[in-house]
Amino acid sequence: PFLLAQLQPGDYVGFTFFIGSMAMLASTVFFFVQMTRVEGKWKDSLLVSALITGIAAAHYFYMRSFWAENQTSPTEFRYIDWILTVPLMCVEFYLILKPYGAKQSLMWRMIFWSVWMLVTGYLGETVFRSQSAIWGAISTVGYAFIAYDVWFGGARKLANSSADPNLQNAMRILGWFIFVGWAIYPIGYMAIEGGLLSGVLPVKAMDLIYNIGDAVNKIGFGLVIYSLAISSNQKLQ
Amino acid sequence: PFLLAQLQPGDYVGFTFFIGSMAMLASTVFFFVQMTRVEGKWKDSLLVSALITGIAAAHYFYMRSFWAENQTSPTEFRYIDWILTVPLMCVEFYLILKPYGAKQSLMWRMIFWSVWMLVTGYLGETVFRSQSAIWGAISTVGYAFIAYDVWFGGARKLANSSADPNLQNAMRILGWFIFVGWAIYPIGYMAIEGGLLSGVLPVKAMDLIYNIGDAVNKIGFGLVIYSLAISSNQKLQ
Ligand SMILES: CC1=C(/C=C/C(C)=C/C=C/C(C)=C/C=O)C(C)(C)CCC1
Ligand SMILES: CC1=C(/C=C/C(C)=C/C=C/C(C)=C/C=O)C(C)(C)CCC1
Repeated sequence: PFLLAQLQPGDYVGFTFFIGSMAMLASTVFFFVQMTRVEGKWKDSLLVSALITGIAAAHYFYMRSFWAENQTSPTEFRYIDWILTVPLMCVEFYLILKPYGAKQSLMWRMIFWSVWMLVTGYLGETVFRSQSAIWGAISTVGYAFIAYDVWFGGARKLANSSADPNLQNAMRILGWFIFVGWAIYPIGYMAIEGGLLSGVLPVKAMDLIYNIGDAVNKIGFGLVIYSLAISSNQKLQ
Repeated sequence: PFLLAQLQPGDYVGFTFFIGSMAMLASTVFFFVQMTRVEGKWKDSLLVSALITGIAAAHYFYMRSFWAENQTSPTEFRYIDWILTVPLMCVEFYLILKPYGAKQSLMWRMIFWSVWMLVTGYLGETVFRSQSAIWGAISTVGYAFIAYDVWFGGARKLANSSADPNLQNAMRILGWFIFVGWAIYPIGYMAIEGGLLSGVLPVKAMDLIYNIGDAVNKIGFGLVIYSLAISSNQKLQ
């Protein structure tokens, strides 16, 4: 029946759900295929990139159908996606730093803060909406720890001591993804009713920003790691 | 329910939706398999060819169901497809010219103009329909820059300086794809209500032309690159 639900001209949110779902799927295929071609030490990273965009693709197909039928997109789907994909992005940092001595503790630390960030953010956005400011602040602590790790903390220090300019460059770009790309999510949070930016950004605008941001954050993130894998004259097979 | 919607004899648009979807799918399988057999430097190009026809296949399956149910095909689906596949075709130019010194800036320049062309074209076709002529002209600027690049600009110059007759031949054919094959889309645009060719071409005729044109432009484009990859006695594995 969802095929009867027609995309209306100017329904940019519906549009970006369609484009996003297909872009995520195509990227997943891309990362899977390239995984078979890069040097062994990069295969895990590309596999995880494929899982991240693959999970997102499945969610986007679901969300796009939901949108086509109901012209709305429940927040829960976003958090369902994030709780799986954001920790996997943290795993990516561990994987690219492992050849330079990253310990599993770095991975668990980042995963912990990402789960902290998402669980408390979800509580503030839905269950305890009237105290959303406090929960948002608690959530931001997790975001800040992750950003700190990548910009100045353990993760960055490993990259700096690696003496590999490609790795350092990738870490710098990924740092910007976290600082700028990820910032759209707390901004969207502040745009909810009762939030600091409430009324400034209409809810539909946020869905549009999320759809574009998700594609950049997930596909772009994977492409940075792919570039790293094929840099320094590492030949593809 | 869409299986209950039957193709009528003489429903050429419905016909070509079915044929197109299967042709795109078969080509995708072909490009994926041949990708594993061509020399390393061509693998990326064949992978991208497979992604282009694969994305189109997914969209064609969707559009054919939509057509079977509703006897119409919203413009939005075409643009959703183009916004992903046309930039990927621009990536193809970069990939085949990379062994001859193409820089990433060539790729980003072409992607930029393709997105420019499609976004402004969409706005003129739907949201600002009453000013479709102006938006069409703005869109054509992007088309012209891409065509110029391939016929006379940076892309062509790299091919000329490559001293590889196979590459030069492929570039010439791809140039014709852009000049003639792609020209059906702006012609279709002019056939919309209020356009320069309005009334000359009925809307159903345009769907038919798009369906045939898409197959030629996407599968043909990929086949040109495949021929290039197996030319000059490069042995398949
Ligand atoms: C700081 C903060 C948040 C951060 C969310 C983030 C940073 C989500 C990242 C999602 C990603 C990277 C998705 C990938 O596509 C919340 C939970 C909105 C709640 C308010 C405070
Ligand atoms: C110039 C121009 C256009 C060009 C569209 C093109 C060139 C689309 C190409 C699509 C392809 C190559 C699809 C592949 O199968 C628009 C947007 C209709 C708007 C009017 C002006």
